[in-house]
Amino acid sequence: MLIIADNLNIMHPVIARALEKRDPEPIRRLVKRCVDAGAQAFDINSGPLSRQPRETMVFLVETVQSVTHLPLVLDTANPAAMAAGLATCAGPVTINGFSLEPDKLERILPLAGQYGADIIGYVIGAHSRVPIDEHEMMSTAVALFEAYTKAGLAPRQLIIDPVVVPAAWPDGPRHNRNVLSLIHQLPDLLGAPVRTIAGLSNLSSGGGSLQGKMVLEAGYLPMLAAAGLDMVMTNVLHPNTLALAKVCRVLLKEGIFSWADLDSSPN
Amino acid sequence: MLIIADNLNIMHPVIARALEKRDPEPIRRLVKRCVDAGAQAFDINSGPLSRQPRETMVFLVETVQSVTHLPLVLDTANPAAMAAGLATCAGPVTINGFSLEPDKLERILPLAGQYGADIIGYVIGAHSRVPIDEHEMMSTAVALFEAYTKAGLAPRQLIIDPVVVPAAWPDGPRHNRNVLSLIHQLPDLLGAPVRTIAGLSNLSSGGGSLQGKMVLEAGYLPMLAAAGLDMVMTNVLHPNTLALAKVCRVLLKEGIFSWADLDSSPN
Repeated sequence: MLIIADNLNIMHPVIARALEKRDPEPIRRLVKRCVDAGAQAFDINSGPLSRQPRETMVFLVETVQSVTHLPLVLDTANPAAMAAGLATCAGPVTINGFSLEPDKLERILPLAGQYGADIIGYVIGAHSRVPIDEHEMMSTAVALFEAYTKAGLAPRQLIIDPVVVPAAWPDGPRHNRNVLSLIHQLPDLLGAPVRTIAGLSNLSSGGGSLQGKMVLEAGYLPMLAAAGLDMVMTNVLHPNTLALAKVCRVLLKEGIFSWADLDSSPN
Repeated sequence: MLIIADNLNIMHPVIARALEKRDPEPIRRLVKRCVDAGAQAFDINSGPLSRQPRETMVFLVETVQSVTHLPLVLDTANPAAMAAGLATCAGPVTINGFSLEPDKLERILPLAGQYGADIIGYVIGAHSRVPIDEHEMMSTAVALFEAYTKAGLAPRQLIIDPVVVPAAWPDGPRHNRNVLSLIHQLPDLLGAPVRTIAGLSNLSSGGGSLQGKMVLEAGYLPMLAAAGLDMVMTNVLHPNTLALAKVCRVLLKEGIFSWADLDSSPN
């Protein structure tokens, strides 16, 4: 399971202040801390309300690339900012993301072909509806896959996100159980080995103590891993989360166990 | 998921010394600590080498019952000690346990009918072989279920244990992944709603630091819970394990999430 840091978020005060002053140093320090903690890729979330969306994304990509060669995930709903970010990326990059919403299908999805980038597809319906019911979730995932292949793209570039929702939402626990089931069944459902991703931080958003958030993440991450999740988007500065991701890898990998594996690097 | 304390083990120095002196006080204190920590049942393991197996089991049952009315699980391979313990139990009790080994089928299994007790059935072959391969594990579970029903017992009294093995065993990780798969598929496989149990402490036995053991248990417990495990046998004095068991219940239960659920009692 690949660990993608979601720490580079415009909602993070350090990022917000650094962006305002176009000062790369605080961002570089944060990126270094995340690399040291075990990040294997970075999500760059330039936010929906950025005043200069293209310049902001380019500044963030350039700043992160000045510190690390790890793969990047560009996270914006603005097609122009996405394109500018993709053009700036020197290494492997993933578009985050599209869904069945018409503007995403029309303006974000085509960028995957144009830039030869992997792309995250959210299991969200045409009317921005997150399906709760297992059957609706499955049919939405199939429709997403069909819309994707219809655009002429290869399944190996697609990463499906079944959308973890806050546990505190009405029907949140039921939805998140269905997320596990979807991840487990997706290869059979689509008849193609499509990768999956999930945003762990969503689970505890909107409330709870830090300790409560941590234990919630600690409970759900191994469930996601055992269901077969390929990538997780998470706050890599929660130390328990990284240690757990490592132990999940040890528990689920092929080959011989060694106690030393628990202490080695998260790779 | 019901939490069964496996702390009352003759290998535990406090228990060993107390047994030697027939002093119930240290055992009572340990039982109270386990109840306070969140134990919902107690496994009483009188060990294979007890000199007075019947007296030892009766003493342990009486001592535990003098402190708590929680359900008991009697854990001995000695049929006479098991029968004496069962006769002493005032409340709900489970026999731990039988397998396809001939002496267990002949001398332990019949006690379930005689005492109207639930019984744990280990997925272990006739020649004491723990199956590693998924197919062999499934066929052994089916054979176990058939031997059980042939004895005229009701499926609702049976609790199947797919036998978690130490991660450090050769093929340990592969076996333990197959355990998850077996738990998940067991209802379909048997065509009956049989309960399942797993011994979490086995996972880390035979090596590793306490921290390594804790993180290994923390990774595997939510995987077991998501697979549908009904009961877990564990050291309830590992505080993280109990907090995780609680969060698993919150993540997997029906109904509405509340942050307060994470802080309430493990029941």
